[in-house]
Amino acid sequence: MSGRATGRPPLALTQGEPGGIGPDIAIDAWLARQRYGVPPFLFVGDADLLTRRAAAMGRDLPVARVAPVDAAAAFAEALPCLAAGPPPAAGRPGELAPEEDGASVLAAIRAAVALVHGGEAAAIVTNPINKKALSQVGFAHPGHTEFLGELAEQAYGAPARPVMMLAAPGLRVVPVTIHIPLADVARALTVEKIVATGRIVAEALRRRFRVARPRLAIAGLNPHAGEGGLLGAEDEAVVAPAVAALAEDGIDATGPLPADTMFHAEARRRYDAALCMYHDQALIPVKTLAFDEAVNVTLGLPFVRTSPDHGTALTLAGTGLARPASLIAALRLAAELAANGQAR
Amino acid sequence: MSGRATGRPPLALTQGEPGGIGPDIAIDAWLARQRYGVPPFLFVGDADLLTRRAAAMGRDLPVARVAPVDAAAAFAEALPCLAAGPPPAAGRPGELAPEEDGASVLAAIRAAVALVHGGEAAAIVTNPINKKALSQVGFAHPGHTEFLGELAEQAYGAPARPVMMLAAPGLRVVPVTIHIPLADVARALTVEKIVATGRIVAEALRRRFRVARPRLAIAGLNPHAGEGGLLGAEDEAVVAPAVAALAEDGIDATGPLPADTMFHAEARRRYDAALCMYHDQALIPVKTLAFDEAVNVTLGLPFVRTSPDHGTALTLAGTGLARPASLIAALRLAAELAANGQAR
Repeated sequence: MSGRATGRPPLALTQGEPGGIGPDIAIDAWLARQRYGVPPFLFVGDADLLTRRAAAMGRDLPVARVAPVDAAAAFAEALPCLAAGPPPAAGRPGELAPEEDGASVLAAIRAAVALVHGGEAAAIVTNPINKKALSQVGFAHPGHTEFLGELAEQAYGAPARPVMMLAAPGLRVVPVTIHIPLADVARALTVEKIVATGRIVAEALRRRFRVARPRLAIAGLNPHAGEGGLLGAEDEAVVAPAVAALAEDGIDATGPLPADTMFHAEARRRYDAALCMYHDQALIPVKTLAFDEAVNVTLGLPFVRTSPDHGTALTLAGTGLARPASLIAALRLAAELAANGQAR
Repeated sequence: MSGRATGRPPLALTQGEPGGIGPDIAIDAWLARQRYGVPPFLFVGDADLLTRRAAAMGRDLPVARVAPVDAAAAFAEALPCLAAGPPPAAGRPGELAPEEDGASVLAAIRAAVALVHGGEAAAIVTNPINKKALSQVGFAHPGHTEFLGELAEQAYGAPARPVMMLAAPGLRVVPVTIHIPLADVARALTVEKIVATGRIVAEALRRRFRVARPRLAIAGLNPHAGEGGLLGAEDEAVVAPAVAALAEDGIDATGPLPADTMFHAEARRRYDAALCMYHDQALIPVKTLAFDEAVNVTLGLPFVRTSPDHGTALTLAGTGLARPASLIAALRLAAELAANGQAR
């Protein structure tokens, strides 16, 4: 593959759910490329879908069907597109049509992994997908991230352990458990899981975020981090030993900390990432502080992958009202992380 | 009692743990009375403790031992004090000495309830106590708030159901369950508990906060409010019926809402209080946004009670470094809520 020969390759931005706002925010991110310093990206998906969506939104959009190697140069004048698999036959804003569109969603993700593996893309940025719709065409993975993990293992021949980070200006959070009922969290939490997550986060902070000595703040599970066992045993039995094990690895890890006092401005300056024990413990602070700017970063993959921190937002598709801020932040961060990793 | 005869009675501020920062922040709140518009308060506790602490802090503090009826007038020139029970024999900054000091802590709380019941105080503001230390002198209540609930029932002869609200500029949150292990939250949550809490909150918003038509936002328990049952059954089985029951009462209640997207600036404008299902779901957003300014308000009592949203902070006592911001906010809010309730 020849991408490496002509300077930095573009980011691969996947099409995502055609009925959602993925095409919309791709269009508006490209239109805002100068104002917000959006790095060159290649839309991996259907060019006609973009053209139709731009018309619905009242946007003037030149698209360029290009080879990956020419995408970065084309980016200044047109939105570069690379077809992947069958085009979405429906692709109507606001509608899920998995029978007609599903194959194109999955093909774009597969193509993006092939591009980054072949050096034709610097990193992957994914537009949101609809798991429920895709499950009707045989998608059996728990989610987008796990699917990427499997594709990465196939392409690179090494095990991947994807870890989700939400990154916003001034706050990075990582939930150790994610999409499980709250009642299952205490049972699901193990020393191994916290330690493995902490190691991946520390390594990514060093390698990708250029933090020489990463400081991890580890949240307690219970109110007041268990208050010495009065409010639950797990903070002493599970979280504290994990913090000790990370410290033995030479990682600057502190905790278990009471979660409610970890996220105010002064506290946030004391760490580079917060490890949280469950979904809302991590996502409440980051979305409270930076609703539009939070970026989902997948650590533990052999390539950089980011995505905007929102869903398909079907009702906004085609209206021109969807905000591209999170996608723009995801594109900028992906380029930065890829460049940092490159330099080592 | 004659407090009512001479204009608005003062707030009763309890002494709290003598080894903690209660005396310190009382002193600095009084010294800042003009700058921050601190309403007149009566320190219910030992005047000598204040004098000694002011000396340790390097503050110049006039104190006035006064009858409650004279406190408001004295407030401009000196910090008004009312002795309650035995003085704290130790009262050393940074030290817990329950045998010597515990009785004075409890006596101040009892005296404050008597004052507000007799019309000699407009409301109660409590300084932090140390439950563990007090348990050594026979204090068997789960916490400060429950103790006040029992004293209220004894004084007023009617059942009290204390509900904790954290109030900050632009955000009020109420945890439905509070100081229990996270693993017990799902089991502890009932339709009755959510509905009873919601009713008390709506009534308090109308009566005390002057919100004519209170809007309650009810958080889901699970990630994404359970995602239609995929991530836990409780949001459909427990939270949704509670929201419906509140709506049947004529209360503007919305939910279950995904907790992570409830607290950004735009979302916060849509409700007057957020009902949260557990401690950190409520306290993370309010302390992330307003660490120093959040006030703990106890609803469901026959009187107004607020307290600063922090603990005894033993290591800061006597240093002059403890910040009085939360106590000042608690005093200001108590005066406002008492005046609002009065007017009806």
